[in-house]
Amino acid sequence: MEALRAGVSVGRLRIHDRLQPSPVIDEILATAKARHVLVETVPGDVLDAVSETGRHQGVIAEVRLPPALSLEDLLSRARASGADPLLVVLDGLEDPQNVGAIARSAEAAGAHGLILGERRSAGASPGALRASAGALLMLPVSVVPNIAKALEWLKAEGVWVAGTAQDAAKPYFEADLKGPLAFVIGSEARGLQRLVRDRCDFVVGVPLHGRIESLNASAAAAVVLFEAARQRTAKPANPAERSTTPK
Amino acid sequence: MEALRAGVSVGRLRIHDRLQPSPVIDEILATAKARHVLVETVPGDVLDAVSETGRHQGVIAEVRLPPALSLEDLLSRARASGADPLLVVLDGLEDPQNVGAIARSAEAAGAHGLILGERRSAGASPGALRASAGALLMLPVSVVPNIAKALEWLKAEGVWVAGTAQDAAKPYFEADLKGPLAFVIGSEARGLQRLVRDRCDFVVGVPLHGRIESLNASAAAAVVLFEAARQRTAKPANPAERSTTPK
Repeated sequence: MEALRAGVSVGRLRIHDRLQPSPVIDEILATAKARHVLVETVPGDVLDAVSETGRHQGVIAEVRLPPALSLEDLLSRARASGADPLLVVLDGLEDPQNVGAIARSAEAAGAHGLILGERRSAGASPGALRASAGALLMLPVSVVPNIAKALEWLKAEGVWVAGTAQDAAKPYFEADLKGPLAFVIGSEARGLQRLVRDRCDFVVGVPLHGRIESLNASAAAAVVLFEAARQRTAKPANPAERSTTPK
Repeated sequence: MEALRAGVSVGRLRIHDRLQPSPVIDEILATAKARHVLVETVPGDVLDAVSETGRHQGVIAEVRLPPALSLEDLLSRARASGADPLLVVLDGLEDPQNVGAIARSAEAAGAHGLILGERRSAGASPGALRASAGALLMLPVSVVPNIAKALEWLKAEGVWVAGTAQDAAKPYFEADLKGPLAFVIGSEARGLQRLVRDRCDFVVGVPLHGRIESLNASAAAAVVLFEAARQRTAKPANPAERSTTPK
């Protein structure tokens, strides 16, 4: 549904021949029809055989991931949006579920692009695409050979670089997250690489209040990205409204 | 590691005989030793056979889920914490990954308990336990026959009930999330059930800024729960600090 909604090119849509009717299935079929997408009704075992993730829910769309962009093109496109660029950098996330989930939250929070490392990162795989609910079809992606160097280049271009780390002294909600910004998310197991953390202009954390000592990387990413979105869209201070005074 | 840290009773710890050394493995072994937990070094195929989720990372601990509490006991315990109760209610979430991920964020945000429906909900399964990174061992859980009735009971006990829905007019950051509060998270596919939504004192949403039309349920839960945590721990207003004026 998200792929059809996004206007992504869908080659063919296969649907389970015994799928229970539901509003979302009706919407998928109506949208596919309107978009002239070929719909095939097939038995479950065909879907199982075609699925690259083994986790379809009775519908599989054939889509093509857009090609990755150069870092330069990613930033130019972000600037062309008219808003201050908001980029998300993944430093060594290996779990496609997390990569997909972060892409989904990033797109929904209004981020303009995702930057992945060539090594040690899960790229835009079928598993990540599925977990992203189609966000990886919409959010521009750049794959860079070296994250630390990419951050240096972004800083030279006037983009602030914010790291996220469990042990950061500064809570995410006390940081000014407006302006051109790249948010770096580390892996759950290892956090940010030393060389990456050293490149950050500042590092923020999500304060924890229980016994668990770390958040899931995609939960932490959602929390900080939607705080950035909130700050970027906040109405000007007004005595009758919640007011924020960034330091 | 989280189970050992939490002081949960661990029956036996099996570890892969060819596991690469790492700081977290060293910490697991040292903590297990200090806690007198039996550690067995086993070949990978034993771990694969023992794993109930098929997703172990070279270490499997035998743990027992604490028994579910009655709603009354859950609320009494929350009140005994001294803080205003913060409870999380899952309305029809079927994906154990999501249930586990929400439990992890809830525990980390300082929530006092999780309320699940008897039907249509994934309970505290091995998959959910794994995805929770041990949070389901620490966070009290109550399983209720009827979510709407449970909400009515909570309201009669002085707990505010807040729903989350994609189409809510009120952004989560404009709501007052202090005081005794139960947050109801709906399923991704169907949102809140009508009867559940009708019981909510107010419903909040996470404003989206991209083309994706919905957030993952666990991402949305993380965003609203950490906003509740932020509001609950905010320092009193001070001209030099960010100030908030709940309506």
